[in-house]
Amino acid sequence: MIKEEDVITLWIDTKRTYLVKVRKGKKVGSDKGALNLDSIIGLEYGVEVTLSTGNKAYILKPTLIDIYNGLRRPSQVLYPKDIAYMIYSSGIKPGDTVIEAGTGSGFLTISLAHYLGDNGKVITYDIRQDMQEIAKKNVEFLGFSNRVIFKLKDVREGFDETNVDAIFLDMPDPWNVVKFAYHALKPSGSIVIFVPTVNQIEKTGIALKNNGFIDIHAEELILREYQIKENAVRPKNIGVMHTGYIIRGRKSLKSSV
Amino acid sequence: MIKEEDVITLWIDTKRTYLVKVRKGKKVGSDKGALNLDSIIGLEYGVEVTLSTGNKAYILKPTLIDIYNGLRRPSQVLYPKDIAYMIYSSGIKPGDTVIEAGTGSGFLTISLAHYLGDNGKVITYDIRQDMQEIAKKNVEFLGFSNRVIFKLKDVREGFDETNVDAIFLDMPDPWNVVKFAYHALKPSGSIVIFVPTVNQIEKTGIALKNNGFIDIHAEELILREYQIKENAVRPKNIGVMHTGYIIRGRKSLKSSV
Amino acid sequence: MIKEEDVITLWIDTKRTYLVKVRKGKKVGSDKGALNLDSIIGLEYGVEVTLSTGNKAYILKPTLIDIYNGLRRPSQVLYPKDIAYMIYSSGIKPGDTVIEAGTGSGFLTISLAHYLGDNGKVITYDIRQDMQEIAKKNVEFLGFSNRVIFKLKDVREGFDETNVDAIFLDMPDPWNVVKFAYHALKPSGSIVIFVPTVNQIEKTGIALKNNGFIDIHAEELILREYQIKENAVRPKNIGVMHTGYIIRGRKSLKSSV
Amino acid sequence: MIKEEDVITLWIDTKRTYLVKVRKGKKVGSDKGALNLDSIIGLEYGVEVTLSTGNKAYILKPTLIDIYNGLRRPSQVLYPKDIAYMIYSSGIKPGDTVIEAGTGSGFLTISLAHYLGDNGKVITYDIRQDMQEIAKKNVEFLGFSNRVIFKLKDVREGFDETNVDAIFLDMPDPWNVVKFAYHALKPSGSIVIFVPTVNQIEKTGIALKNNGFIDIHAEELILREYQIKENAVRPKNIGVMHTGYIIRGRKSLKSSV
Repeated sequence: MIKEEDVITLWIDTKRTYLVKVRKGKKVGSDKGALNLDSIIGLEYGVEVTLSTGNKAYILKPTLIDIYNGLRRPSQVLYPKDIAYMIYSSGIKPGDTVIEAGTGSGFLTISLAHYLGDNGKVITYDIRQDMQEIAKKNVEFLGFSNRVIFKLKDVREGFDETNVDAIFLDMPDPWNVVKFAYHALKPSGSIVIFVPTVNQIEKTGIALKNNGFIDIHAEELILREYQIKENAVRPKNIGVMHTGYIIRGRKSLKSSV
Repeated sequence: MIKEEDVITLWIDTKRTYLVKVRKGKKVGSDKGALNLDSIIGLEYGVEVTLSTGNKAYILKPTLIDIYNGLRRPSQVLYPKDIAYMIYSSGIKPGDTVIEAGTGSGFLTISLAHYLGDNGKVITYDIRQDMQEIAKKNVEFLGFSNRVIFKLKDVREGFDETNVDAIFLDMPDPWNVVKFAYHALKPSGSIVIFVPTVNQIEKTGIALKNNGFIDIHAEELILREYQIKENAVRPKNIGVMHTGYIIRGRKSLKSSV
Repeated sequence: MIKEEDVITLWIDTKRTYLVKVRKGKKVGSDKGALNLDSIIGLEYGVEVTLSTGNKAYILKPTLIDIYNGLRRPSQVLYPKDIAYMIYSSGIKPGDTVIEAGTGSGFLTISLAHYLGDNGKVITYDIRQDMQEIAKKNVEFLGFSNRVIFKLKDVREGFDETNVDAIFLDMPDPWNVVKFAYHALKPSGSIVIFVPTVNQIEKTGIALKNNGFIDIHAEELILREYQIKENAVRPKNIGVMHTGYIIRGRKSLKSSV
Repeated sequence: MIKEEDVITLWIDTKRTYLVKVRKGKKVGSDKGALNLDSIIGLEYGVEVTLSTGNKAYILKPTLIDIYNGLRRPSQVLYPKDIAYMIYSSGIKPGDTVIEAGTGSGFLTISLAHYLGDNGKVITYDIRQDMQEIAKKNVEFLGFSNRVIFKLKDVREGFDETNVDAIFLDMPDPWNVVKFAYHALKPSGSIVIFVPTVNQIEKTGIALKNNGFIDIHAEELILREYQIKENAVRPKNIGVMHTGYIIRGRKSLKSSV
C-alpha cells in the first residue's frame, strides 16, 4: 500500500519516469499531465492512475533503475549495467562493509546500500563538499542514511578503515590509491575500479599487479537496447557506445608494500 | 581464517580456478601441481601457497565469479554479466522472496540466494529431476540450502506462490508462463527473462504487453575482456560474442487476464 | 590541380565537411566562415585556405566518406561501413555490371560506380520517381552518369537483365525479389542484401536457401569511433548502435525454381 | 566456363572452402570427400559436383572472402571486414597506385590489386624475404603479378615513390613511418593504418597530427555473424571479439616537416 513519505516511481512511459516522495498537497507534473499525490495514498503499488490530461500512468515501487532515471545528479553517474557487474563481481553480500570513492552524486552509494541491506555499511569518500551534500540528500531521500557514512577526505592520503570487504573506486587516478586500498581491504577482498579511458586501464592494472593484488581483470560492457515490435525486432539505432572499463582484483597476502 | 568445511577458491591463474571444500586428508590437483588441504587449515584467506610442483597459488574466499568458474554444471548456465544485470534491474533486495524457473545447474539460484541473504528465499522450479539433483548438491555445497526451495513441477501449469517480489525465467518458451507469473507476482514486482534468440524476444515481449506488464525492455550485454599489458592494451581476440537477451517488465494492476 | 567544375571537399573540421562544385563567382559558407571558390582554382589539392572569418580549412579530393558526409539525401542512406563490406564481400571488380534496388538517394549507386570504374555499369531500380530524380542529380554531380542506368520499375516484378555479376538489394521485402535475382545473376554471382530488422534476416535467409543460393551468411558490423587524445584514448560515448544486417549468398546452378 | 589454370573455389560448406588451381590429373581432397579436377573443366561456374564420398559441393569463382579463407598464410592476415573499410575509406579507385607495408602473406596486397584493376599498381614493402616469397606466390597464384611490385626494404628508412594515391600500413610501429608516408603521398591522399593495440592508436594519431595530416580518425569494427535458423535467429556464440583499429588521415600541404 502506498503511504505518505514513500518514495514512488510515477511511470508514464519509458522516457517519463519520475521519482517522488508522497506528500499531502503535493503535485507531480510532466508534459503529459500532472498527478495530485493525495490521490494515491492508500492505493496499491502497480495501480493505474489518470493524469490531469487524461493520460494514464502507473505508480511503481522504485527499482535501482528507476532511481537511476529519476535521481537528481549534477555529475555523470555510473550506468546501471556497470554498477550491476561491479557489485556482482566483487563478491559482496548483505551485511558487508565497503568503501567507495568518490561519492559523486551518490548513485553507486545508493546501489551499494540497497544491496548490503540493513546490516551493511557503505563508507563513502569525496573531496568535494558540494557534491557530497547532494549525495547526502539523495541517500536520505531514499531512506538509506543509516547505511552510509560520508567522509570528506582525499583518499590519495589513505583510508581510515581496515578489514573492509570491498573497495569501489570511481576517480580519475585510482593508481594513486591502490596501495592504500590494499591496507584497508581484508585479505581476499575485492577492489573494483571504474575508468573511462584505456590509458587508465594500463596504469591501474600495473598498480594492482605491483601492490599485492591478484586475479586482475579489465572488462567492458556494451549494452544494446532492442525495439520490441512485431515483425520488426532490432536494436535501437542510437545509443551509448561507451561508458568505461571495469578493473577488478583481489588482495593477496603477498604485498610488497 | 580458513576452517574445515569452508568452500574455498584455489586460484592458480586466470584459467585455473578451483572451488573446493576443505577437508582433512583431501588433495586438490591440477596440471600445475597439487595442494594438500590439511596444510591450509588455520591460515588466513588471501594466503600464498606452494603446490607440489613448486608453483605458487592463492586461497581466496569464493565470489560468485569463482563459483561460476568452478561449479559442476552439466548444462550451460547463465553468464555472470547477464545474471548481474538481471538481479540489479529486478529491484530485489535482501530478505525478498523470488521465483526462478528452470533451476538448471543452479547457478542463478545460488546467485539469487547470495543476494537475498539469510532472510531471503528462492523458490526454484524445474521439470527435470536429474538436473535438480545436481542443482541441490551445488546449493548445498555452497551452504545455501536454507534459502532455497526446490520444486519439481512444470511452470507452464502455474506457480504455487503469490505475492513474490520477482520472477526470473530461463526457459525455452517463457511466453507460455507470463500469465502465471502475473498472478504469482506482487503488484509492481519485476519479471526478468533470459532468452538466446531474437524470435523469443518478440514472442515474450508481446506476451508481456498482453498480460498486464509495463515498463518492458529487451536488452543485450556484450562483455569484452581486455589484455592489460604495458604498452599493448587491447581486447582479447576471441571471446563470447553472444549469450542472449534480457527481457524485463513490471506487473501493473491493469491485467486483462 | 583544382579546376573549374571539379567537385571538391571543403574540410573545416570533422563536423564541417562540404562537397561543392568549383564555379567562378560561387561561394561556400558555413558557421565557421565562407570561401570564395574563385580563389582556389589553380591551387593544389590538400591546400590550406583561409575562410572569411580567418578560420583555416582545407581543399581535398572527395573520398566516398566525404561524399557520404556531404551528399544531398532526403532519405537515410546505407552507412560507409556497411557498403564497404557489401562491396568487398560481393567479389565485384572493375568493369563488372551490377544491379541495385532501390536507388534511394543514390549513395550506394555512387559507391558502386566508383568501384566499378569507367568500364563498369550499375543498373539501379526504384519505384519512386522523385527519389530517383535526386539520385540522378547526385550521380551527375559526381560525374558518374556514364556508369549508371536508372530504371523506374518495381523489381518485385523482375529484372530486365541477365548474367549480371552481382545484385545489391536495400528494400523492405527482399524475399519477394530473391527468385528474380536468381535469374538475373550469372552463376556463382553474389547477392548482397541489407535489412534493418532481425525478422528480415530470417525471411530473406530462408528465401535464399529455397531459391538456389548457397554460401549464405548474415552479418552485422558495429563501428566504434575513438577519441585520439594523449593519455585519454577511449571510444566516443554516443554513437550509432545499429544500422542493419548484411545477408549474402551466391547463385548455384541447383535452382529449384 | 571453368578452364584449366583457373583458380576456383571448391565450396563444400561454410567451414570447408578450398582455393585451387584447375589442373588435369589433380585432385583436391577434404574430410568430406575428394574431387577430381579433370571432371570440372568445361563446366559452368556455380555447378554442383559430387565428391568421392557422394557428398555434394559447388564450384565457385573466388571472391576475396574465398581467398581469405583459402589462402596459404603463415602469418595472421588482416580480416576482410577491416580491409573492406580500409580500402573504402581511403578513396582509391581503379587505376590508382598505392603503397603497402608490410607485405605479410599478401592478402591485403591481393585485395588492393583486385580493386585497383588492370591499370592499378600496388607497391608492397617488407623486410622479411621469406614472407615476401610466400606473398609473391600467393599473388602469382591469383594472377595479379602484373599489378604488384615487391620491394624488400625497411620503410622506416623511407619509400622510393612520390605522388602515390594512398598508403596502407600494417606494421608494429607506424608512427616511425608517418613522415616518410607524407613525402610519398600526393596531396589530399589517404594514409590508412591498422594496429592491434590502443597504445598504438595514441602514438600513431599523434604522429599524424604532427606531420601534416588532417581528417584523422580511429575506428574499430566489430563483426557479428548470425545463425539463420527458422524461429531461432541469433548471433553465433563464439567469435572474434577484436582484430584491431583502423587509423586514417589525409595529407594536407601544411606539413611542418
